[in-house]
Amino acid sequence: FQQLRTELVDELGASYEVPTELQEYLDYMAQYNVPGGKLNRGMAVVDTVAGVKGAPLERAEYFKAAALGWCVEFMQAFLLVADDIMDNSLTRRGVPCWYQSPHIGMDAVNDALILESFIYIILKKHFRNSPHYVSLMETFHDVTYRTELGQLLDLKTAPADDVDLSRFTMAKYNQIVKYKTGYYSFFLPVSLGMTLANVNEPQAFADAERILLDMGRYFQIQDDVLDCFGDPAVSGKIGTDIQDNKCTWLVVTALERASPDQRRALENNYGRSDAFFVEAVKSIYRDLELEAEFRAYEAAAVAELEADISGFDHFDARVFSDLLAKIANRTK
Amino acid sequence: FQQLRTELVDELGASYEVPTELQEYLDYMAQYNVPGGKLNRGMAVVDTVAGVKGAPLERAEYFKAAALGWCVEFMQAFLLVADDIMDNSLTRRGVPCWYQSPHIGMDAVNDALILESFIYIILKKHFRNSPHYVSLMETFHDVTYRTELGQLLDLKTAPADDVDLSRFTMAKYNQIVKYKTGYYSFFLPVSLGMTLANVNEPQAFADAERILLDMGRYFQIQDDVLDCFGDPAVSGKIGTDIQDNKCTWLVVTALERASPDQRRALENNYGRSDAFFVEAVKSIYRDLELEAEFRAYEAAAVAELEADISGFDHFDARVFSDLLAKIANRTK
Ligand SMILES: [Mg+2]
Ligand SMILES: [Mg+2]
Ligand SMILES: [Mg+2]
Ligand SMILES: [Mg+2]
Ligand SMILES: [Mg+2]
Ligand SMILES: [Mg+2]
Repeated sequence: FQQLRTELVDELGASYEVPTELQEYLDYMAQYNVPGGKLNRGMAVVDTVAGVKGAPLERAEYFKAAALGWCVEFMQAFLLVADDIMDNSLTRRGVPCWYQSPHIGMDAVNDALILESFIYIILKKHFRNSPHYVSLMETFHDVTYRTELGQLLDLKTAPADDVDLSRFTMAKYNQIVKYKTGYYSFFLPVSLGMTLANVNEPQAFADAERILLDMGRYFQIQDDVLDCFGDPAVSGKIGTDIQDNKCTWLVVTALERASPDQRRALENNYGRSDAFFVEAVKSIYRDLELEAEFRAYEAAAVAELEADISGFDHFDARVFSDLLAKIANRTK
Repeated sequence: FQQLRTELVDELGASYEVPTELQEYLDYMAQYNVPGGKLNRGMAVVDTVAGVKGAPLERAEYFKAAALGWCVEFMQAFLLVADDIMDNSLTRRGVPCWYQSPHIGMDAVNDALILESFIYIILKKHFRNSPHYVSLMETFHDVTYRTELGQLLDLKTAPADDVDLSRFTMAKYNQIVKYKTGYYSFFLPVSLGMTLANVNEPQAFADAERILLDMGRYFQIQDDVLDCFGDPAVSGKIGTDIQDNKCTWLVVTALERASPDQRRALENNYGRSDAFFVEAVKSIYRDLELEAEFRAYEAAAVAELEADISGFDHFDARVFSDLLAKIANRTK
C-alpha cells in the first residue's frame, strides 16, 4: 500500500500539476480512509491467485495480485465515504467519518470520487499491457454499478424518515444484500484473482459467483445479528440498525413470525431513536427467539456452503473454504 | 437519447433485477438531469467525427458518435449533480437542483454515481468490439480524474466559509479552470470524436488539447463576467459568484490592479451574501474598468485562438473554428 500510495502521490505532482499541499491532503485522505479495515477483501485477491496456481506466488506475481487487492480496498473506501454521507453517520471504525472530520463536510463527495479514480489510475499503471486489462476494468465497472443499484434499493426501501415495514420482505432483503454487499465484498476480489490467474471458463465464474453471493448473504445476516445482540466490547461498535430503520434479517424474520399484536408493536417502535423504543423491538426479537433462529440458520448455511464448495471442481476450492472459515461463527 | 435511455432502463430489468418502480425512478432521474443543457458538448463529438471524415456521416457512424456524445452529457450530469451538493446550490437551469427535489436529499450522491456508471454501460454495449474501446474508457477515466482534481483545487482555494483573497492568483485561476472545466467541456468531446475517427498521431491530440484548453479558459472567463455583468433576462440566471467567494477572473484581475485601499475593500466585502457588500465589490470592479479590460482580453483571446486554429494541420480545422464561433462574444 505504501508503494502504491507513494506512486499515486508522485504522479499527482508529475502528471497532473497538483500543488504540494493538495498532494499532502490527498495522501492524508487516502491514509485516513483506505487501510484501517480488516483487509479481508484485498487479501482474498492474493489468496485466489495463489490458490488457482497451487503454489506460492513469485515476487512479481504477488505484487500484481496485491495491487489489485488494494484496488478493492480503494473501492471499499470510496463506497464507505459516500455511504456515510448518505446515512448521515457519525463514526466509522471508531473514528469520525471522513465527511465529519474538521473542514471536510461535503467536499467528501469529491474525495470519494477521487478514491474511485485511483482504481483506474492503478489499473492503467500496472495492467495496461496485461491481456486482462479490459476484463479488469469491466469487472470494476460492473461491480460498482451493481453496488450502486443495491444502494439505491436500500435507500428507497428503508428511508430514515419514513418507516413502513410493509416494504420489508425476505425477497427484498436478499436482493439488497446481494447487490449492495455481496458483489463487491465477496465476488469482486475472487473474480479479480481468477482473472489474473488466467481462469476463463464462464462456468467457473458462475459457480464462484453463486457460492460467494451465498457467503455474502450469510456474512450480512451475521452482521445484522451482531448489530443487535453482539457484545460492543468485542465488536468495537454500538449497533443502530433498529434506530436507523434498517431492513435487516432480524426485522424481516420477525415480521414473518409476528402475531398481529407483535406486528403492530414493531410498527410503532421501529426506526425511532429513543432507547425505550429500541428496547421494545429487542424484546419482541427475544420473544420470537430470533437468536436461536439465527443459530439454526447459521448451522444450515455453513453446511450448505460447505457442500457447494466441495462440489466446486474448476480449481482447488480451498480459496472458498478459507474464506468461509474466516467468517463462520464470528463474534465481531 | 431516448433510445439509449430505453436501452439502459430495459437492461436494468433484464440484467440487474431492478424492480419496476426503481426503473421508473432512474428513468425520471436521468431525464431530469441529463438532457436539459445546451448539448454543445455532445454535439461536438458528432461534429468532430464528421469534420475529420470530411463528409456527412452514415447512419451507423452517426449513431456511434451520438452515443459517445450522450456519454459526455451523462458525465456532465454526474458532475453537476455532485457539484450542486458540494456547493449547497438551490437551482440549476431554472429548476431545483436534483438533491433539492422532494424526497431526494443525499440519495443524490448515489444517483450521481449511477449516472457515471451509465457511461461505462453504454461504452460496453456499443463499443465493446471496437478497436477504440480501451482508449475510450481510458479517456473517460482520465478526464474524470482531472475534473475531480480541478474540483478539489477549487474547493480548497475558495471554501465558502473562509474568505482569504491571498489564495486567489491568476496562476491558481488558470489551473482550476483548466482542470475543472476545460478538460471535460472542450477537450473530452473532441478527443473522443478524434479517437472514433481513427486519428492517432499523438501530436494531433496535443495540438487539439492546447487549442481546446485555451478555448475553455476563454469560455470560463466569459462565464465569470456574465455572472457579474450579464443581463439575467438574457442569460436566465442570477449570478452569485461574489457572494459564494468564487475565484473568478474578475476578482483575480481586480486584485492584480487594486490600490491598497481597494484591496482592503475587496477583502472586507467579498464572499458575503448581503446585497450591500456585493454592490461594494461590483463598484470596485467598475472603478477598475474590468468590463473594458475583459473586452480587450476577449479580442486578443479570439485572435490568438484563430491564429492557433489556422496553424492546425492534422485535419480540417473547421471543428475548432465552429466551436469558437459558437462561444465568441456570447451574451448567455
Ligand atoms: Mg451506512
Ligand atoms: Mg447506507
Ligand atoms: Mg451492519
Ligand atoms: Mg457549482
Ligand atoms: Mg463547485
Ligand atoms: Mg459561473
